[in-house]
Amino acid sequence: LDRLRDLIRIPSVSMAPEHAPDMARAADWLVELMRQIGLENVDLLPTGGVPVVYGEWLHAGPGAPTLLAYGHYDVQPVDPLEEWLTPPFEPARRGDDLFGRGASDDKGQLLAVLAAAEAWLQAAGHLPINLKVMLEGEEEISSPHMAAFVQDGAQRLACDAVLICDDAMLDPHTPLITYGVRGNVYLQLTVRGPAHDLHSGTFGGAVENPFNVLVRLLARCQDPDTRRITIPHFYDRVRPLSDEERALLARIPLTDTAVCAMTGAPALAGEAGYTTLERAAVRPTFEIHGVQGGFIGPGKKTVLPAWAGAKVSMRLVPDQDPQEIARLAESFLRSMAPPTVELECHVLGRSRPAVVDLEAPAVQAMLSALEMGFGIAPLALRGGGSLPIVAEFQDALGAPVVLAGFGLPDDNTHAPNEKLHLPSLYGGIETLIHYYHELAQTANL
Amino acid sequence: LDRLRDLIRIPSVSMAPEHAPDMARAADWLVELMRQIGLENVDLLPTGGVPVVYGEWLHAGPGAPTLLAYGHYDVQPVDPLEEWLTPPFEPARRGDDLFGRGASDDKGQLLAVLAAAEAWLQAAGHLPINLKVMLEGEEEISSPHMAAFVQDGAQRLACDAVLICDDAMLDPHTPLITYGVRGNVYLQLTVRGPAHDLHSGTFGGAVENPFNVLVRLLARCQDPDTRRITIPHFYDRVRPLSDEERALLARIPLTDTAVCAMTGAPALAGEAGYTTLERAAVRPTFEIHGVQGGFIGPGKKTVLPAWAGAKVSMRLVPDQDPQEIARLAESFLRSMAPPTVELECHVLGRSRPAVVDLEAPAVQAMLSALEMGFGIAPLALRGGGSLPIVAEFQDALGAPVVLAGFGLPDDNTHAPNEKLHLPSLYGGIETLIHYYHELAQTANL
Repeated sequence: LDRLRDLIRIPSVSMAPEHAPDMARAADWLVELMRQIGLENVDLLPTGGVPVVYGEWLHAGPGAPTLLAYGHYDVQPVDPLEEWLTPPFEPARRGDDLFGRGASDDKGQLLAVLAAAEAWLQAAGHLPINLKVMLEGEEEISSPHMAAFVQDGAQRLACDAVLICDDAMLDPHTPLITYGVRGNVYLQLTVRGPAHDLHSGTFGGAVENPFNVLVRLLARCQDPDTRRITIPHFYDRVRPLSDEERALLARIPLTDTAVCAMTGAPALAGEAGYTTLERAAVRPTFEIHGVQGGFIGPGKKTVLPAWAGAKVSMRLVPDQDPQEIARLAESFLRSMAPPTVELECHVLGRSRPAVVDLEAPAVQAMLSALEMGFGIAPLALRGGGSLPIVAEFQDALGAPVVLAGFGLPDDNTHAPNEKLHLPSLYGGIETLIHYYHELAQTANL
Repeated sequence: LDRLRDLIRIPSVSMAPEHAPDMARAADWLVELMRQIGLENVDLLPTGGVPVVYGEWLHAGPGAPTLLAYGHYDVQPVDPLEEWLTPPFEPARRGDDLFGRGASDDKGQLLAVLAAAEAWLQAAGHLPINLKVMLEGEEEISSPHMAAFVQDGAQRLACDAVLICDDAMLDPHTPLITYGVRGNVYLQLTVRGPAHDLHSGTFGGAVENPFNVLVRLLARCQDPDTRRITIPHFYDRVRPLSDEERALLARIPLTDTAVCAMTGAPALAGEAGYTTLERAAVRPTFEIHGVQGGFIGPGKKTVLPAWAGAKVSMRLVPDQDPQEIARLAESFLRSMAPPTVELECHVLGRSRPAVVDLEAPAVQAMLSALEMGFGIAPLALRGGGSLPIVAEFQDALGAPVVLAGFGLPDDNTHAPNEKLHLPSLYGGIETLIHYYHELAQTANL
């Protein structure tokens, strides 16, 4: 807990250039910790951007499997700062929760991986598996250097399974294994009208208002009734949900009432024909994150703005291709844009969706370990978030990727008042201690 | 010109509380100037807000008409500041133009009224009319105290005609008289969804995104093809455009190509069945000025925001009633808002539209004076902007309101790089010198 507090105090916001020194501080702090618990060859590995913190322990003997554990030490920005009850980089314990940016995503979880290794090394003098740990510093800016890093470093990173601890349980009592992630494509749209801002009294009604066009374009991307995305061919490559998978998801006892209570939403909404869980995990989305331009200060200004912009992202599911979806979205938007404006469309980022074989021994070992750690059989679902590295690990290392996590759905990751539920963290550490053992057993299969 | 430079240097932004001392400085500066040119009973008159600067000269003799000249000494905010080529409060002359916030709206024009009076007093020792000058300090925040001020001060302000110099000519060669103004209703809309920002990876697709709802609501307020406003009963009270008025407007030689060149818009757009001029002056509008909430910083953040807001205004025409239109808009928006969000709708401001009788002697006198000042017969049209005080003067004083002005359509009022075309200003001063004389002649009619 003290270690986690110390790590949260380092504001390692990868998106903010002014936090570059904090990124370096966080990396150095992790190098020191890894050495202290007994990992070897601990070093900062260059990526072309923020370095990866790497360490390993490879003395498990012939035939023992090798696990590559991945985590990330960068965190999301903190705005809106005024909504935090306590400062984001001053960890504050309230009840069973520790509040602070990165507590859950992913500082608490990466420390769990190290704590479990430390427990083995201290108690048994060895680990039952070979362990490689790599901690990224650019996950929250969509891992721009990870694909190349994993490809170029495939030899060093070679393993029998990859473990990513950056996820949430269903609730404090119910562990989950995640066997897939959504992809993402993030667009910056800009609608340009007049050359400069105009007075709406002089020109309003005669010169196109870029906002009026933008809201029309954005509104048309989603059917208001079915909430289906209306971009032509958007769903062409979406794998239909199998009956088997629907049944798996239906086992998860998450009611709409519970989701409303968790989020404070007055009521839920989503694509017709799918349950809430299906909508949040195995179906693609269209989300507006912000709208730029014009006047948003206090008071009223009757500006007819020169431009209006929007930040939009779409979560993607197998087998949608982010590049193709970006093209389809842009061409749909262009087809609707009137000649009174110019439309710009830039791809700010994209990541591929992925699924993992639930039957892989490394996944089955985690299912066992979670049951040991939390005393209850885990559930399985696909995750709604995006982890580009899942597809990259699968491609470059040919190893199954085990997605586990000890956060909770209400951890406020990416939002004010992020927190980590400490009993879940401690259950996670126990789980990982078991996992290293369970994974070692798979060598005998 | 030096006086105008001095007055522009005082950043009298009424919308910004931090500029309150500058508002007082501007008022004191005007008091001093009025006294200097020979007005009497010069004083600051309380309004409940920023004071009115008042002065008069009432020695024109029995039977001479009394003119109440109105102007305003407050200015719009300057954002986006980075788009100004020279600082907004450091007047800069480039060619025939003087750049600076308020140069055209309305500091240059109020000084023209005073300069013409000074010319009479210096050259003739008297004015041919009784003149009352009142300069408001809250016009750019929609004149919250003017209705009461004019009603309560009706005796002091009693007059045969009101002159408002706060308008533009058609082009540097073509003077205009404006015989109407549009009204306005300005709304702050807020769509509230979840209790706090969420991660779109965890909840995207299952919890309503307030932006997705907001763009849908806003897009539905306007027909994408005809650009008609779709709020039920919105047009019920709009006076149809008479053939006579259409003919008057058609005399104005403003081509769409010229408006494109002036604004930099790639092409024009507006309500089907109306010309550009009609759309900008005698037809109502629906304009989005800004959209709030979520994330608009650099980079990409996949936030599913707790709320999304929009600043929206509608320009109104006779006989639309701002209060009624606000009610209609709110109830239309509410009828479309899904139960997944809460909609808030606040009226930030409203003003009534007005028309003036073109045949009134005080208006006819201005038509003559403009021809003398600029050597060309003026054109007549209704203005697209809003001046709440027009309806208020008409109601409280029972006098016709003469709307003239010596700005130009490309003055960038309410936008970066506001400027005043100096030859037009000088023509305006000459016009006003003639106007005081022409108005005096109407007493003989």
